[in-house]
Amino acid sequence: MEYVNKLKVFNDPVHGFISIPNELIFDIIQHPIFQRLRRICQTGLTEMVYPGAKHSRFHHALGAMFLMQKAIEELRAKNVEITDEEKNGVLCAILLHDIGHGPFSHTLENTLIEDLYHEKISLFLMEKLNAEFSGELDLAIQIFKGEYKKQFLTQLVSSQLDMDRLDYLKRDSFFTGVVEGNINPDRIISTLNVKDDLLVVDSKGIYSIEKYLTARMFMYWQVYNHRTSYTAEVLLTQAFRRAKEISRNGGKVFATDALGYFLQNDTKDSLKNQLDQFIKLDDSDVWASLKEWQYHEDVILSFLSRCLINRKLLVSKIFTEAVSDEELKKLEIEAAGYLGIENGDYFVHQSPIRVIPYDKTKSPIFIMNKDQSLQEISVSPLQILSEHLLNPIEKYHLCYLDVKKKI
Amino acid sequence: MEYVNKLKVFNDPVHGFISIPNELIFDIIQHPIFQRLRRICQTGLTEMVYPGAKHSRFHHALGAMFLMQKAIEELRAKNVEITDEEKNGVLCAILLHDIGHGPFSHTLENTLIEDLYHEKISLFLMEKLNAEFSGELDLAIQIFKGEYKKQFLTQLVSSQLDMDRLDYLKRDSFFTGVVEGNINPDRIISTLNVKDDLLVVDSKGIYSIEKYLTARMFMYWQVYNHRTSYTAEVLLTQAFRRAKEISRNGGKVFATDALGYFLQNDTKDSLKNQLDQFIKLDDSDVWASLKEWQYHEDVILSFLSRCLINRKLLVSKIFTEAVSDEELKKLEIEAAGYLGIENGDYFVHQSPIRVIPYDKTKSPIFIMNKDQSLQEISVSPLQILSEHLLNPIEKYHLCYLDVKKKI
Amino acid sequence: MEYVNKLKVFNDPVHGFISIPNELIFDIIQHPIFQRLRRICQTGLTEMVYPGAKHSRFHHALGAMFLMQKAIEELRAKNVEITDEEKNGVLCAILLHDIGHGPFSHTLENTLIEDLYHEKISLFLMEKLNAEFSGELDLAIQIFKGEYKKQFLTQLVSSQLDMDRLDYLKRDSFFTGVVEGNINPDRIISTLNVKDDLLVVDSKGIYSIEKYLTARMFMYWQVYNHRTSYTAEVLLTQAFRRAKEISRNGGKVFATDALGYFLQNDTKDSLKNQLDQFIKLDDSDVWASLKEWQYHEDVILSFLSRCLINRKLLVSKIFTEAVSDEELKKLEIEAAGYLGIENGDYFVHQSPIRVIPYDKTKSPIFIMNKDQSLQEISVSPLQILSEHLLNPIEKYHLCYLDVKKKI
Amino acid sequence: MEYVNKLKVFNDPVHGFISIPNELIFDIIQHPIFQRLRRICQTGLTEMVYPGAKHSRFHHALGAMFLMQKAIEELRAKNVEITDEEKNGVLCAILLHDIGHGPFSHTLENTLIEDLYHEKISLFLMEKLNAEFSGELDLAIQIFKGEYKKQFLTQLVSSQLDMDRLDYLKRDSFFTGVVEGNINPDRIISTLNVKDDLLVVDSKGIYSIEKYLTARMFMYWQVYNHRTSYTAEVLLTQAFRRAKEISRNGGKVFATDALGYFLQNDTKDSLKNQLDQFIKLDDSDVWASLKEWQYHEDVILSFLSRCLINRKLLVSKIFTEAVSDEELKKLEIEAAGYLGIENGDYFVHQSPIRVIPYDKTKSPIFIMNKDQSLQEISVSPLQILSEHLLNPIEKYHLCYLDVKKKI
Repeated sequence: MEYVNKLKVFNDPVHGFISIPNELIFDIIQHPIFQRLRRICQTGLTEMVYPGAKHSRFHHALGAMFLMQKAIEELRAKNVEITDEEKNGVLCAILLHDIGHGPFSHTLENTLIEDLYHEKISLFLMEKLNAEFSGELDLAIQIFKGEYKKQFLTQLVSSQLDMDRLDYLKRDSFFTGVVEGNINPDRIISTLNVKDDLLVVDSKGIYSIEKYLTARMFMYWQVYNHRTSYTAEVLLTQAFRRAKEISRNGGKVFATDALGYFLQNDTKDSLKNQLDQFIKLDDSDVWASLKEWQYHEDVILSFLSRCLINRKLLVSKIFTEAVSDEELKKLEIEAAGYLGIENGDYFVHQSPIRVIPYDKTKSPIFIMNKDQSLQEISVSPLQILSEHLLNPIEKYHLCYLDVKKKI
Repeated sequence: MEYVNKLKVFNDPVHGFISIPNELIFDIIQHPIFQRLRRICQTGLTEMVYPGAKHSRFHHALGAMFLMQKAIEELRAKNVEITDEEKNGVLCAILLHDIGHGPFSHTLENTLIEDLYHEKISLFLMEKLNAEFSGELDLAIQIFKGEYKKQFLTQLVSSQLDMDRLDYLKRDSFFTGVVEGNINPDRIISTLNVKDDLLVVDSKGIYSIEKYLTARMFMYWQVYNHRTSYTAEVLLTQAFRRAKEISRNGGKVFATDALGYFLQNDTKDSLKNQLDQFIKLDDSDVWASLKEWQYHEDVILSFLSRCLINRKLLVSKIFTEAVSDEELKKLEIEAAGYLGIENGDYFVHQSPIRVIPYDKTKSPIFIMNKDQSLQEISVSPLQILSEHLLNPIEKYHLCYLDVKKKI
Repeated sequence: MEYVNKLKVFNDPVHGFISIPNELIFDIIQHPIFQRLRRICQTGLTEMVYPGAKHSRFHHALGAMFLMQKAIEELRAKNVEITDEEKNGVLCAILLHDIGHGPFSHTLENTLIEDLYHEKISLFLMEKLNAEFSGELDLAIQIFKGEYKKQFLTQLVSSQLDMDRLDYLKRDSFFTGVVEGNINPDRIISTLNVKDDLLVVDSKGIYSIEKYLTARMFMYWQVYNHRTSYTAEVLLTQAFRRAKEISRNGGKVFATDALGYFLQNDTKDSLKNQLDQFIKLDDSDVWASLKEWQYHEDVILSFLSRCLINRKLLVSKIFTEAVSDEELKKLEIEAAGYLGIENGDYFVHQSPIRVIPYDKTKSPIFIMNKDQSLQEISVSPLQILSEHLLNPIEKYHLCYLDVKKKI
Repeated sequence: MEYVNKLKVFNDPVHGFISIPNELIFDIIQHPIFQRLRRICQTGLTEMVYPGAKHSRFHHALGAMFLMQKAIEELRAKNVEITDEEKNGVLCAILLHDIGHGPFSHTLENTLIEDLYHEKISLFLMEKLNAEFSGELDLAIQIFKGEYKKQFLTQLVSSQLDMDRLDYLKRDSFFTGVVEGNINPDRIISTLNVKDDLLVVDSKGIYSIEKYLTARMFMYWQVYNHRTSYTAEVLLTQAFRRAKEISRNGGKVFATDALGYFLQNDTKDSLKNQLDQFIKLDDSDVWASLKEWQYHEDVILSFLSRCLINRKLLVSKIFTEAVSDEELKKLEIEAAGYLGIENGDYFVHQSPIRVIPYDKTKSPIFIMNKDQSLQEISVSPLQILSEHLLNPIEKYHLCYLDVKKKI
């Protein structure tokens, strides 16, 4: 008696069962570049605040693909024409939309490879895969780049109502336990429609959308801009800055192979070489290195690393107005004095946070009335909240070493 | 305008808010030995099958402590005497019950430190912490060891109905998405009681317990003994076996500092030294090393590592009867031939799985009837399932390299 | 500015959005015979124990139709041929499968119309509707009666794994709050398949089925056979028995028009006439009448009615062996003495409960292995519980008036 | 072998287990006046739109009491002094806060007993119960009336953040399936505190409160002011108006005993007599009567009743500006012509809806900062939504008989 099985279904606590729709997608998922996303945490250092937030970019990519399947079914049921080829294209596009992320992406992306953001890297990697898969990703890439004739397909991949957002908001809310950010992707998808090649929302769904916009705001303030994970990100950036300085000045710094490349890569190597190293990286390189750096002779590097490893973070605060440069300077001097170093700016950081709950100029949401006319949501007579979500909210994050507290 | 905050509450998607009850427990949680559990996955390689299962041992320890708080409240409300000191003791005991786990514990625990299981290490580490905290953990250790006069406190930490199990079953079901294994700890706790220093279940809760016992069975067969994660565990064990062999024969094998110690630690070092290295380890050491080992010149090590990193696993099967030694030998020879190596036993593994859904001899569950009399659950006239859960179920796992499939 | 809307979607807390698939089904739902199900509680007097259980037969019928839509999609995706006509037929069949239920059906069905069970009435009413809808329900009726060539369609309507059961178990668990009975219809449906015109389960779904079978057991013991709602049912049956006696003996008993018909309908009227009255009945007739009967001069009727209205129920007990006739007689005499009446048997009732968790002879569940072979679930080597669910469990309910307690 | 049980725990799908805290509360719940709430639907005719919304006022009262227990535990843990007597008082107050509701309260309250609102009736009934329970409800009544020295206790019963609201919003969202209105009472309660005898919110909970305020808005627009249930309410009001007219003009109208009293009660009877009849009423009186009225010879009454029983409702619309009196007149004339009656105003109704999402003047919410200072939420620097919720939103409901559509 014997049982064989080929994995074609993923069990997802967020969406239930995720089926892999075809062989090409199965093969993409099996590819080392994609499997690597298993070892990259979706929300970086957020786990310092919300211990449940260990979910991977791999999981998110699958989830977004799942929602895309639902969206396509929904739109087809509403007589929007989507060919099988287009369906496959848009599924591959969403599956790969974040393939360019490295470890602690938002923190390190400009630190590891300078001037190269993950969207760009995603595109490079999609093209690399396309070559391996003999052009089967042509349409996916067109859609991803917004160059395909049906613009609404691109909007499903990237817009205010794309499947990326629907998945990550739902997923991040689920794993952090921040229930205020919970959204209902099924409901939102059931209200999507297409009019004049625009992705729009049936008017019956207007409250679902307003709920979604407010849930997103809560996620911004409770999770994505949480001052504690912000502090951890500052520490991580500074630790890498310091490790690079030491390394480029001829000092010895432990690193895994791929990470070592980026610590030393001062002059710009060819993009191909950089990417070949980049795809070897994941979170384990960073954690394994930080753990060793705790014992480095450089006070700055070892202190920063210990803070992160033992989660003894800097003080962090949120202000509605910026702290003056003089005050920042004063904090730097205190930190420097405390640690017996010259320059305290590794330990003091201020940055503004600016959130536009709903940016109608950049990517408006259209409501389709019963008579098929379109209205931007904030001017719809049905709306009860949207008009208030247009204004940006601005606050300031500050973190610094509290020299009175023993760390 | 400024906001300060001291983290005293964790947001848990499983239980909601987890409050830290006192300063001692806050300090234990802040300790590097405990913080290290953040970087150790609760369910090891299960994430190869269930991508959501990235939750940490840190999170589980907090969750179990949360349930212990509930259990104590419940029992006190039923007039079971539990002093504040005892409460603190049993909270610390459950918080630290798994402190001795290292990375991929069930897989590696006998591979890294020979003949030393995590329960033993937990006790050593608790004693180490006790020294640092000036004996404040005395009572916790007594309870943990079962040496405290009130046995029911030990049963809350370790028995068929302990808070450890209630948390991990709930949590693992939650993060894997295996809904068949979902249990309701609140409900179970609300039925707990103490009679004659025994932890018992009020008769109204009998179906909740029977549901719990069946949910546990489902977790055993769908998660803990899943043949795919079993295969990954075999690969990991073999990779470490091979890395040690190479290392001890003078070969060079990349490793982080602490991990290197265990690869070379052939003769037994002092226990203290071993533990000092042990507490530096976490999952990142393992992943970072496996990634480097992919490129090692040794065919066996590199092949095993690539299988794990790229999730190209061996074939795995479940049988109701064991495969014969001859057949296993044949598979080994095939694997050896395919890879051009001498010994194929790194790639063929069979092991029995034996599950007793409810082991009444080892740790019986007692139902307390309205008249305060106790009955072991499987002989209660109310039971509808328990009597069928006494028999062990035995199956066999086999995994091997399928030489016909290109990996 | 104006908004019109035609209700085509129901919001269901259990399944989410339920869409009405076509005009015919819309018209059936709008029909007074169907709308009447809004006023008939799905679980009768269960609300006496579980106050959330007020959900209607209307809601259940919609839910079962929703699951049928899912099942059809799933089977079609597995290349099971189901024509659009067949789809419509099976949707109508499930929608109408319970149309023959009256108020407190299981309690009163043999009391109101003698010797006519709800399945039979359902069929009569389906035929009545079919006449109104010019034969559009022909196929639905064939499927309902098991006379259509594709037997698996009938099995979707009525079998161990039919959509009726999947919906009511899920729904009753949801509204009662009995979490032990929670099942996952999505998961079960995703494992359904058809082989040789049999509805079967893919082997990957075996644990979902075993979970479902145990959840059903828990519902039987915690809800459907709960001794308190059983007592209420006894009281209701006896109140109607008494009201009929009084009424047929020329006494005056308040009743709504339709209910009055059934109280007096001694000699058998034509079936058509009976049904015409029957479809006017709903729960409000029963409650409104019981409320008036509280003040009736007949001690028995008024006492029984007050018990129900004020929820002062009889004592109820469960035994593993039947109480002897002598003891029952003794209890009847006590009750009669207490109330000053001649015959106490209105207030004493015993009945056996016999539950076969899984009746393999009546309606076996087949597992389809990877090689397409079928095995009855309890003999599958994968099973871990089913073989234990074949034996009937028998207990006894007794309820009686406790003359020592003031009611 | 025998099992006895006294019901002390309710299973609530919303909150889990609800325990009855003491004998007095047990006896209140057992009282016929309270048991009668089992037969009164919490949300009246909302079930016409959301079929799951059949939950009773009985269930809501228990739920609100459950939350009150939690709130008291929370406040006590924060060192707010609440004696056992006060606890009992506030529990009774919340349990009985809605005892004055009759069937379809918001619709009929001014129709059945003129000029007497449910709050007033609640108070009369509490006093009636207090007499029966020998003054044990003295403190509860004081708290309910706001005459007790500790004002925060009254605020727990009635304010923007009272347990009444927390329960009904959660419960109504749960049973309707309107997920946009889902709130998290546990989380909100965990942020409550008392400062200077005011019920306030700890600053960490500000987003939970803002989430709650928006969820409430969604409930207002999606449930409480849904235009379809509004239409049903209009029909019900008109049916009663017509039945009273007929009845008072000497016509014969079927009614249950208690309901008949209110149809005829033209001149004001003593309050005591009115209340004695009032507490006999529940939903079944209304439904049973409407069913009979379908066959009444009066065209208006029978038409209105059939609309309700068969759910063939009037057309209903929402406008941002009121429809003119001329247009309304025109619609009335059309309706009158269609039905062959003189006065069409039974079938045309317009009413404004005015919602202030958060009315800061009537019942402000105070945030307590870390330094114990209080700030009204909409001026807190932490707020991200509240300031936008101060403005009223006004729309208009219109319903009328569409004479072109066959009903």
